[in-house]
Amino acid sequence: MAASSSLFSCSIQGVMPFQKTKTDYKQFQCNYSDLVCKQFSHSNSMHLKHPRLLPNEKFSQSETLCRALKVENSPSFLVGKKFQLDDVIEAQQFDRDILGAIFEVARDMEKIEKRSPGSQILKGYLMATLFYEPSTRTRLSFESAMKRLGGEVLTTENAREFSSAAKGETLEDSIRTVEGYSDIIVMRHFESGAAKRAAATAGIPVINAGDGPGQHPTQALLDVYTIEREIGKLDGIKVALVGDLANGRTVRSLAYLLARYNDVKIYFVSPDAVKMKNDIKDYLTSRKVEWEESADLMEVASKCDILYQTRIQRERFGERIDLYEEARGKYIVDRHVLEVMQKHAVVMHPLPRLDEITVDVDGDLRAAYFRQAKNGLYIRMALLKLLLVGW
Amino acid sequence: MAASSSLFSCSIQGVMPFQKTKTDYKQFQCNYSDLVCKQFSHSNSMHLKHPRLLPNEKFSQSETLCRALKVENSPSFLVGKKFQLDDVIEAQQFDRDILGAIFEVARDMEKIEKRSPGSQILKGYLMATLFYEPSTRTRLSFESAMKRLGGEVLTTENAREFSSAAKGETLEDSIRTVEGYSDIIVMRHFESGAAKRAAATAGIPVINAGDGPGQHPTQALLDVYTIEREIGKLDGIKVALVGDLANGRTVRSLAYLLARYNDVKIYFVSPDAVKMKNDIKDYLTSRKVEWEESADLMEVASKCDILYQTRIQRERFGERIDLYEEARGKYIVDRHVLEVMQKHAVVMHPLPRLDEITVDVDGDLRAAYFRQAKNGLYIRMALLKLLLVGW
Amino acid sequence: MAASSSLFSCSIQGVMPFQKTKTDYKQFQCNYSDLVCKQFSHSNSMHLKHPRLLPNEKFSQSETLCRALKVENSPSFLVGKKFQLDDVIEAQQFDRDILGAIFEVARDMEKIEKRSPGSQILKGYLMATLFYEPSTRTRLSFESAMKRLGGEVLTTENAREFSSAAKGETLEDSIRTVEGYSDIIVMRHFESGAAKRAAATAGIPVINAGDGPGQHPTQALLDVYTIEREIGKLDGIKVALVGDLANGRTVRSLAYLLARYNDVKIYFVSPDAVKMKNDIKDYLTSRKVEWEESADLMEVASKCDILYQTRIQRERFGERIDLYEEARGKYIVDRHVLEVMQKHAVVMHPLPRLDEITVDVDGDLRAAYFRQAKNGLYIRMALLKLLLVGW
Repeated sequence: MAASSSLFSCSIQGVMPFQKTKTDYKQFQCNYSDLVCKQFSHSNSMHLKHPRLLPNEKFSQSETLCRALKVENSPSFLVGKKFQLDDVIEAQQFDRDILGAIFEVARDMEKIEKRSPGSQILKGYLMATLFYEPSTRTRLSFESAMKRLGGEVLTTENAREFSSAAKGETLEDSIRTVEGYSDIIVMRHFESGAAKRAAATAGIPVINAGDGPGQHPTQALLDVYTIEREIGKLDGIKVALVGDLANGRTVRSLAYLLARYNDVKIYFVSPDAVKMKNDIKDYLTSRKVEWEESADLMEVASKCDILYQTRIQRERFGERIDLYEEARGKYIVDRHVLEVMQKHAVVMHPLPRLDEITVDVDGDLRAAYFRQAKNGLYIRMALLKLLLVGW
Repeated sequence: MAASSSLFSCSIQGVMPFQKTKTDYKQFQCNYSDLVCKQFSHSNSMHLKHPRLLPNEKFSQSETLCRALKVENSPSFLVGKKFQLDDVIEAQQFDRDILGAIFEVARDMEKIEKRSPGSQILKGYLMATLFYEPSTRTRLSFESAMKRLGGEVLTTENAREFSSAAKGETLEDSIRTVEGYSDIIVMRHFESGAAKRAAATAGIPVINAGDGPGQHPTQALLDVYTIEREIGKLDGIKVALVGDLANGRTVRSLAYLLARYNDVKIYFVSPDAVKMKNDIKDYLTSRKVEWEESADLMEVASKCDILYQTRIQRERFGERIDLYEEARGKYIVDRHVLEVMQKHAVVMHPLPRLDEITVDVDGDLRAAYFRQAKNGLYIRMALLKLLLVGW
Repeated sequence: MAASSSLFSCSIQGVMPFQKTKTDYKQFQCNYSDLVCKQFSHSNSMHLKHPRLLPNEKFSQSETLCRALKVENSPSFLVGKKFQLDDVIEAQQFDRDILGAIFEVARDMEKIEKRSPGSQILKGYLMATLFYEPSTRTRLSFESAMKRLGGEVLTTENAREFSSAAKGETLEDSIRTVEGYSDIIVMRHFESGAAKRAAATAGIPVINAGDGPGQHPTQALLDVYTIEREIGKLDGIKVALVGDLANGRTVRSLAYLLARYNDVKIYFVSPDAVKMKNDIKDYLTSRKVEWEESADLMEVASKCDILYQTRIQRERFGERIDLYEEARGKYIVDRHVLEVMQKHAVVMHPLPRLDEITVDVDGDLRAAYFRQAKNGLYIRMALLKLLLVGW
């Protein structure tokens, strides 16, 4: 335990770190003016979900911590707020203050990722990737995040065929076994709500890497993070959501998170067959978020800061291939769309793309989608750090 | 090579470590009174199977060694005995002395696993998990064990489709290739006897992680280790084996190992269709182990120290679903069974379970099955350490 | 950056290291008499493709470098030559000078692999194995190579089912995503030319681990390296290529590379159905390499230095099982063949083998095929080191 060194470096910088976790079931009212650094220097007072806190990089950790939470610069959102990060289950669990705090850590991660020979912040920690359906992109992103921080990974690509699951074992039993082998579980599942059940069972942190039609919160976080990195702000932005708005959980989660910010305007541009559903529209209205539907991509493109394109999912159209082809060809982002977009605006896409963004757009600096994918790495690094060793 | 430091720390503590291996084909009669610490201090005299012994954690290794084998406390079973651990192939290879020695190392592993930032005892070592049939639970347990000790892993989940095997390559040729890439092979195979063939071929240690209907020795070891940890002893215990006793290799191996101890009493409680076979009964009788068959789970439960429940395997009943359903429902461990059990007794299960133990049992402290699964980690850590860097 | 230490150790040994990369698109005319050690000491002048050069093993790296490129011993092939290694795509990209330089590094790797607790040369580096078709042998070899050097691995065994690829994502888009998560990509693909496309897209190094009927350059390199290690030379050797010469990309690539050396004589020994094609014969003739076809395996065996046996691939014969069986049984390497071979000659095989080499040959010291497989590890270690941290 780096108690004294951490205490020391914190004291002289006036830092007030803290840590709360799932095992600390009481809501922990964290008022900064009441906090002193000793909270960090005594593991008992930290209520760490994970018992293996003892930092292996004493200095760099306390440094990171201090950098993130300097009192002089203490972001207002951290004062007098409830604050807790034990699991990452759904986008709705994050308010703008927590989002801001996570993004600050993510920016630190950008620096760490570039560093050689690599960070050791999570050295000695083991992440289990328990994927009940394949998603190589998401899996690689999490595993890269863990390894970039010096951690190790146990991989399960085919957990559905997990001989135990195939034999009829419950998710809860599987989780109880896997938590014995690892320090954190990243789970992808085909059933909505599976991540919440896993988190309720596990004594170690759980990150939802997508549960069926349900949530994919790290995608939502990286989307918002990308907007902030690209545009420089989240209040007062104009966002066009384009394509399949009925089925894409990505755009639905993004709409939820954008409602956390002020003066956001959202445009929905989609073929009739896959329009944004009323629940989201109602939610936005209730949160006083301005939104409108439009069929004119060019006009919307000329006004928005973010043009968020999505893939039309063929599987949603069943045998109506004709409807699919019609929907698919309707709103393509190409050089013509780029031409009317503002200089500072960017094109985003959750990937993979087919031809809803033409490849000649890739060379334009406003094509942000590969940077967006990369941001997923930083967000996941940040979450792994926060869940395993705290702020 | 930590020769001098090891020699020193050993000398002053009067320790007499040793190491023998597969490559040392002669049976090595290891009489402790003839051994001096120099055996450890000269790699030549160690006959290590693996040439890369040079310890990277000089002190902690010699410490572990010394702790395990202090002369003052030298367990009687280590004196004047043959002792060798080159491969782990079948439960029968372990007598009670070797079991005791392995369990002692496993207990050290419990401490190491909790330590942060993790051990580096196996740093620089590579384990290949060569799985010819999927068993995610077993694979994750081994891989976690290796990584908890600082080692690295090469994973093959689908070695059966190993393009070489699919093309008709022999197991022996595959082993000769894989041994060139790794320091130890953990193999799961669908054919009985495959592990023995692999070990005969490989110049590096092989651990059998289950070979078809044959052996699964690390499961047997973790079962016995769990009994010792939960009950505090192995002599004089009463063990009830419940469920599918005809097909479960787990209970068969466990029966073999329990025969190593004194005054053990075994109860067999199983549906008629899946009774314990005569070979095991005869073996127990020949070893003077008392056993009896019973149809009264409640009565047995009230007397035993260990209630070892198993899953009825549907695939054994072919089309006779009716027989399966009858057998399956016959002996369920639930709150009623718990009520008659002694306070110190525990329920074990090799997992996965279906409903042969009801979930309301999980909350009782006597439900030991998830601790049992966790013990698999410690046993595997111990075996990896012993096979790669010795005692 | 180990600038000063490297500069120092280089200066006193008169070493002239250099580094050029893909991102440095200009061909870099590297004349040794113009080079001074400062080129290594300033990252800017190194044009490293990968920005994370900063060596973590300052001394061992500059040592290796110095050993490899001592001016006193400066091999003639390095003077006044173009030299560049950004990607490994096809056997033809290597001339004999580059081959010699790689082999020198591979020999260093043999020492490193044996070292305990393992090298840290690539600590902090991440390799992504992106396999669009399974090839466990090749994958394990690369992953072992990376881990033996302290690097880390992201594994994708089933990239073809990569949910993104399955949804229609282009290879280029997949590469752009994966390059954000890793430092080097090792790719296996089912389409000829895929590796070249990947390398053209990626900003990080790409190694071709086989692209369909196309290339498998690391196999070709390890074959030539094995010949040099076993025979001690590459000029003036006699090589018999036996078996399926029509379809095996291995023997075709090997023939290309052998043409880089002087006074090589090649014998083709194959069933009529799978004779060496004219393009290779014409190429050899154009390079003044002597070759002849023979149907007399015993006579060829008595004269050659290398007897390179290959597997007859059943899938090439369609429904003509009779032709397959005839071809397959025609040229078997057994004890009788060994008897006529010279004492210094060796038998090679790319593996897996069926029965084209009988198992009683394995015990003979001239059976080099398992050593050959092991050499694949050293060649891949060398390539990973060269691509990631330079000479």
